[in-house]
Amino acid sequence: MRNRVYLDWNATTPLRAEARAAMLAAWDLIGNPSSVHAEGREARRLVEEARGVLASAVRALPRNVVFTSAGTEANALALSPGLRGPAGGPVERLLVSAVEHASVLAGGRFPADRIGQIRVTRSGVVDLDHLKALLGAGPPALVSIMAANNETGALQPVAEAAAMVHEAGGLLHVDAIQVLGKMPFDIKAAGADLATFSAHKIGGPKGVGALVVAEGVAGLEPVLRGGGQELGRRAGTENVAGIAGFGAAVRVAVRVLPEEAERMTTLRDHLENGLRTVAGATIFSENVQRLPNTVLFTAPGLKAETAVIGFDLEGIAVSSGSACSSGKVQPSHVLSAMGFGPAVAQGAVRLSLGWSTQAEDINRALEAWRKLSNTLLRE
Amino acid sequence: MRNRVYLDWNATTPLRAEARAAMLAAWDLIGNPSSVHAEGREARRLVEEARGVLASAVRALPRNVVFTSAGTEANALALSPGLRGPAGGPVERLLVSAVEHASVLAGGRFPADRIGQIRVTRSGVVDLDHLKALLGAGPPALVSIMAANNETGALQPVAEAAAMVHEAGGLLHVDAIQVLGKMPFDIKAAGADLATFSAHKIGGPKGVGALVVAEGVAGLEPVLRGGGQELGRRAGTENVAGIAGFGAAVRVAVRVLPEEAERMTTLRDHLENGLRTVAGATIFSENVQRLPNTVLFTAPGLKAETAVIGFDLEGIAVSSGSACSSGKVQPSHVLSAMGFGPAVAQGAVRLSLGWSTQAEDINRALEAWRKLSNTLLRE
Repeated sequence: MRNRVYLDWNATTPLRAEARAAMLAAWDLIGNPSSVHAEGREARRLVEEARGVLASAVRALPRNVVFTSAGTEANALALSPGLRGPAGGPVERLLVSAVEHASVLAGGRFPADRIGQIRVTRSGVVDLDHLKALLGAGPPALVSIMAANNETGALQPVAEAAAMVHEAGGLLHVDAIQVLGKMPFDIKAAGADLATFSAHKIGGPKGVGALVVAEGVAGLEPVLRGGGQELGRRAGTENVAGIAGFGAAVRVAVRVLPEEAERMTTLRDHLENGLRTVAGATIFSENVQRLPNTVLFTAPGLKAETAVIGFDLEGIAVSSGSACSSGKVQPSHVLSAMGFGPAVAQGAVRLSLGWSTQAEDINRALEAWRKLSNTLLRE
Repeated sequence: MRNRVYLDWNATTPLRAEARAAMLAAWDLIGNPSSVHAEGREARRLVEEARGVLASAVRALPRNVVFTSAGTEANALALSPGLRGPAGGPVERLLVSAVEHASVLAGGRFPADRIGQIRVTRSGVVDLDHLKALLGAGPPALVSIMAANNETGALQPVAEAAAMVHEAGGLLHVDAIQVLGKMPFDIKAAGADLATFSAHKIGGPKGVGALVVAEGVAGLEPVLRGGGQELGRRAGTENVAGIAGFGAAVRVAVRVLPEEAERMTTLRDHLENGLRTVAGATIFSENVQRLPNTVLFTAPGLKAETAVIGFDLEGIAVSSGSACSSGKVQPSHVLSAMGFGPAVAQGAVRLSLGWSTQAEDINRALEAWRKLSNTLLRE
């Protein structure tokens, strides 16, 4: 029997050996980072070392890194109504792009009537004219735009948006989960006042994320209160091993980024060219800049739910739009926001590459696609 | 050089071999539990297996177990203003005992003017007369009382409180973190409508907890929103390995509970008798029922901060009142609530036993205490 092929983001970034080693070592530290004895201090040292690695990777200060239980919690923490920049008062409303992750669309601590949505183009890129109009139509806003979309891979005009947002007295939050380890990301160059990261998308463990805050941004309101961990910004005993694994994964991801990005781009182009030659397949957001590892495609008559199962039976793990949460395939809110109707929004399949992806995986996926297109699209 | 001795809760419950094995196995599962392909389903299976183990241990239904990132998050989730029982409307205020963990004292989503505190006796036990008076003085309340205090070990009259709370149309939340694995705990027998648990206090990993809800209790408001994980009650990709480790730790803790409780009680009594013979040491809450593993003591003139460092230099890891969060020793709010002044509240040292504690550890601690009492108390 042939090995399984993984072209699903979670599965193509299995735990890296370095993260695994760091976590195993951390398991043997029995101290709580808040304890003052030697064991506590050693656990504290591991947490702070990981904090330094992440801070350095995104050009932030270690004290401005807040570890959380995942990207979802980091996004919830970021969306604080009381936030304010070095100059200016607190933000009074929230503007999110229509293609954000569900945890951002949920709006954090902003009341529903204080949340607006920024449109995206047919290519899935934030409409800066619409952002400008929205910014001009109300008080200072916290704006949340992801660095790259998790379904289409489309890069977002974060730096341009930052300039507009700051001009209007607002603050910018960037969900940068998808770009970490795939492209260089620097919170200063991006103009981000807050940025979210997650460990398991770069070969770190599931269950760890971080919010990074730019120097001078204040008013972050904790989601979890109680103990004074994370400088009072996130209560709860630290996931020491998970944080150590996150740090180790960041270290590797940054080191191998240039060659990995090039390698993935080559594989991705080969995959896309192959997909296009069969059954009229088209790639979403193909005319805009995208991540080097993400391909969202459809073909006339394709149904994502059956396609995912079909690929699975051929030994290939892929996903519909994004990993959905209930075990059921739902229509993609991203494609809906891009102006595609329900038939298309329920017919998109995502193939995502990672550090474990090899050329053979791509060939197997193309072979399966040629086979499936004969059966899936006939119905 | 002699080995270090651990008499600090976190350090006396290092990761159990079974939890470690479960986590290692989970690392090799690359799927996201929300993905529909085979790898996703296998990750889902691990999460559900752990859910079943915890549910069975505390006599709840698996569907009523919500995994979180720690006890702090579970407590925050529990304290939902919209909660309601099988009969009756939503709770309108929160009553917490004065000796609760900081994450409960923080009050969850209740506004500050809707939170009241229940007094405790000099022995650190919730004053049921005061609870009754508070319940009678306002609308239905959510009441939060821990099963056992984390500093003194004093057991709380949870079942009696539950009867009063339900009689008054309210709901009871029990922070049961300290009793899990130390004493049998059954949410029905306790009369708990909600109960909080944490993995790292029973030999599971740091960074995983759970809220268990009684059947028929509704209106839980998510702290983390976005994806539909945990039946919509807690968004965010699951910490699969951590949850698997939690499940494995629960399984062991339940299996060995009877003999472990007896073993710890014997060691604890030996420790307390030894402490009392030196320098007029007294044990807090000594006249009430306590956990089998926790000793909070003081002696005239003792300062916790210097004592913790003194024990540390003698090779013994202990803690002041509770693992505090900032790396600094703070006066214990528990002892303050029990009516002790600042001098006593800053002079208490906690020695906590766990599954790794041996008789030799107790002897070493007593030897150190005899030595330290000569120097520490002379100043």
